[in-house]
Amino acid sequence: MEELVKATVIVELKDGVLDPQGQAIQQLLVQRGYSQIEQVRVGKKVEFELSGVSVEQGRTMLAEVADKLLANPIIEQYRIELE
Amino acid sequence: MEELVKATVIVELKDGVLDPQGQAIQQLLVQRGYSQIEQVRVGKKVEFELSGVSVEQGRTMLAEVADKLLANPIIEQYRIELE
Repeated sequence: MEELVKATVIVELKDGVLDPQGQAIQQLLVQRGYSQIEQVRVGKKVEFELSGVSVEQGRTMLAEVADKLLANPIIEQYRIELE
Repeated sequence: MEELVKATVIVELKDGVLDPQGQAIQQLLVQRGYSQIEQVRVGKKVEFELSGVSVEQGRTMLAEVADKLLANPIIEQYRIELE
């Protein structure tokens, strides 16, 4: 049986980059009475299952995928978590 | 100085619920040569800063927010992580 490598890539806006979606959610929540919510920032969590690769190969592959396709390097940062 | 409570809400599709967005990404990646990528599932990571609440009040508030506004309880599950 082939073993699957499970990995998660978290993509977030870099510190200091405005998050209009987060601001919209924050304002909506304040309007609904959650005035203690000062800031909201939204990111993505992308889970992968990889077959036929080692953990290190998986990490290299997902760094490539994140650089090219998942994250916009101008405004976003990412991190890779492997199991 | 008032202390901020930082919290993260992770929203994911429940196990067994189809993820068309993840499938589209997976197929694109296979087409681009990443044939070892068997499955992709996409979730949200929402970071909050709360003021004037205790950690326990923050947890209660965010469970309410997640139930009402962030997650669709039919197809999604969430978890709250507080610092």
